[in-house]
Amino acid sequence: MATINKNYLKLPGSYLFSGIAKKVAAYSEANPDAKIIRLGIGDVTRPIAPKVIETLHSAVDEMADPSTFKGYAPDLGYEFLRKVISEKDFKVRGCDISPDEIFVSDGAKCDCGNIQEIFGLDNVIAVCDPVYPVYVDSNVMAGRTGEFDAAADRYKGVIYMPCKAENGFAPELPEEVPDLIYLCFPNNPTGAVISKEKLQEFVDYANKNDSVILYDAAYEAYISEEGVPHSIYECEGAKDCAIEFRSFSKTAGFTGLRLGYTVIPKQLKTGGEELWPLWARRHGTKYNGAPYIIQRAGEAVYSEEGMKQVKEQIAYYMWNAKYIHDGLKEAGFEVSGGVNAPYIWLRTPDNMTSWEFFDMLLEKANVVGTPGSGFGPGGEHYFRLTGFGSKENTIEAIERIKKM
Amino acid sequence: MATINKNYLKLPGSYLFSGIAKKVAAYSEANPDAKIIRLGIGDVTRPIAPKVIETLHSAVDEMADPSTFKGYAPDLGYEFLRKVISEKDFKVRGCDISPDEIFVSDGAKCDCGNIQEIFGLDNVIAVCDPVYPVYVDSNVMAGRTGEFDAAADRYKGVIYMPCKAENGFAPELPEEVPDLIYLCFPNNPTGAVISKEKLQEFVDYANKNDSVILYDAAYEAYISEEGVPHSIYECEGAKDCAIEFRSFSKTAGFTGLRLGYTVIPKQLKTGGEELWPLWARRHGTKYNGAPYIIQRAGEAVYSEEGMKQVKEQIAYYMWNAKYIHDGLKEAGFEVSGGVNAPYIWLRTPDNMTSWEFFDMLLEKANVVGTPGSGFGPGGEHYFRLTGFGSKENTIEAIERIKKM
Repeated sequence: MATINKNYLKLPGSYLFSGIAKKVAAYSEANPDAKIIRLGIGDVTRPIAPKVIETLHSAVDEMADPSTFKGYAPDLGYEFLRKVISEKDFKVRGCDISPDEIFVSDGAKCDCGNIQEIFGLDNVIAVCDPVYPVYVDSNVMAGRTGEFDAAADRYKGVIYMPCKAENGFAPELPEEVPDLIYLCFPNNPTGAVISKEKLQEFVDYANKNDSVILYDAAYEAYISEEGVPHSIYECEGAKDCAIEFRSFSKTAGFTGLRLGYTVIPKQLKTGGEELWPLWARRHGTKYNGAPYIIQRAGEAVYSEEGMKQVKEQIAYYMWNAKYIHDGLKEAGFEVSGGVNAPYIWLRTPDNMTSWEFFDMLLEKANVVGTPGSGFGPGGEHYFRLTGFGSKENTIEAIERIKKM
Repeated sequence: MATINKNYLKLPGSYLFSGIAKKVAAYSEANPDAKIIRLGIGDVTRPIAPKVIETLHSAVDEMADPSTFKGYAPDLGYEFLRKVISEKDFKVRGCDISPDEIFVSDGAKCDCGNIQEIFGLDNVIAVCDPVYPVYVDSNVMAGRTGEFDAAADRYKGVIYMPCKAENGFAPELPEEVPDLIYLCFPNNPTGAVISKEKLQEFVDYANKNDSVILYDAAYEAYISEEGVPHSIYECEGAKDCAIEFRSFSKTAGFTGLRLGYTVIPKQLKTGGEELWPLWARRHGTKYNGAPYIIQRAGEAVYSEEGMKQVKEQIAYYMWNAKYIHDGLKEAGFEVSGGVNAPYIWLRTPDNMTSWEFFDMLLEKANVVGTPGSGFGPGGEHYFRLTGFGSKENTIEAIERIKKM
């Protein structure tokens, strides 16, 4: 008799964003005239940059011609893309990451979810609290955690690193040493960043303990301040202990095009075993590459015109983020984030729970945000709004919230 | 200390097609003037159909306009695509598969590789021998098999179902009852099909034993004979025991565009547990959808013009397949396949091993094929060629082989 993977049954309820979508759909159905503004899920709204569109069209035309048609992509991704990534995302920042250390994929979410597979089931993971749910859920599914403790709103066997206003939403080194450490900076959901000094502490700690850091830098393009690390490989020794995830979703609005990449340095080992060949094997066996036309689109992002255009998009979203941040502050909310990240993290008023605030915002302002508690107990009494809406909607949303 | 997933170390050598690619690259480097013809990997060569290209262009334009821009796709895939799949792939054949039972993805390889995750590690799998390596390798990686027994060229703890000339390359019901049964028809690598009666036997056997059949129908579009099942859901009771995988790669030349789907009937249970919610959870947590433009391209395949054009492509490849089949037969080879599938399965001459024949073919004819032994010990002394080359190359390859 076939049996199911019982670890899945440990997961309470549905994936956070699917859950929100269902709640909003139900509200919309009951209130068909409500003009709902979505500042919840981190989805972008600006169209794809003209240079990228132009490149997509020309790549589509290549697919129409037998002499330029492309079938299966190379396992790691096309070299034209890996080369430009190596140059423009790493070498310009003094990080010696070669094209062969870059694995192109259909997005950072998939990679963050799948990376745990190359590690043993006996590894103990550490995550920030609050945390992007994928890191935890993918480990729950694999059986790398204990049961969900509903009272604590936490999984047994997971090390949670609290990120609170008191520590500037950057975690302390955990006392109990984890094997795998998930870090995401600029952070989703808090919008906080980590200083280079603090990140270096984590790198040193990981190297000392032979832990591996899984570093999600999906929001790197939103960093506006000097001195904030764009890549973990800016830290000394990081190539011996860290894997980094990057995404085109937020950098260039590719949420609907799907493109990302993972960096695994060739020298990265744990317990004497190299990690690069394991991920290469997974990539070769269980994945078949990002579409050629999308990889060409990714390359176009790094062109002079492309860079200029995606920077304008980011400036657009960051204008929104600042508007939300300042507007909410003015309205008396306690807010952070929104400077080096598109996320604004606000404390719910009157000690409301995150979901109570979600419901109130949906009903009274027809604004959808993300309940902080969906990111773990450390997010309870917090709420996430994003700068990814349109300027008009963002302004209207803040007006409505102010009137609430 | 972080530990690796030691199951990966059970995998001998590299993934078959990556291994071939390396061997061919080395030969090309040493013989830069050799005009190599690749009839090995099952990659297509015809350009994308005009109707699909037209649709891709218009979908790209939608991504350029804020009013039509699309971000994250719905978890299961866009409804426009799931609806047309439900109608044109299933309902027209009398299979009652609803759009909600269809999960759109970036290809059947990923889905075939990932599906095992929703099952317990205690399940015993059965596979055909020879077999598409992904089914086995993904289970090895998960730890659902024992060690690799090099002498037997098989993994311990896996039930192999021999597919030989004697049984028409269709497996017998295994004596030891497996929990998960992988079937692929039309078959890769043998090009054989299974009769509806025989497939019904498997369905009945699975229902009797509460086993789950994982049915890979990626080559369904190549079926040319009447009475051959296109979907396992043509069999009575299949919705209670079977998951089906489909691909646009071979149907419409999407190997470089990446699109496929998986069918999980809502009523499908094992040990009382529904499988649909588990795959939905995996999809929602570890995947982020196929690109909008590619899903639109998939929809275009089902349009009247699209269907006509992709049928012409298939006819093109099947002309090649028949040419290879007949040419090799004429040259004295023992051949099968090539009628309902783009694959030709030939017995190596003089009892050569599959790799010996690979090397000879590469060196003497500059033709790349796939060694049958790469698909398991049942493939030893066999060799796979495909109809996916250009007509000109196919003709030249057969000429060269005849002269060998």
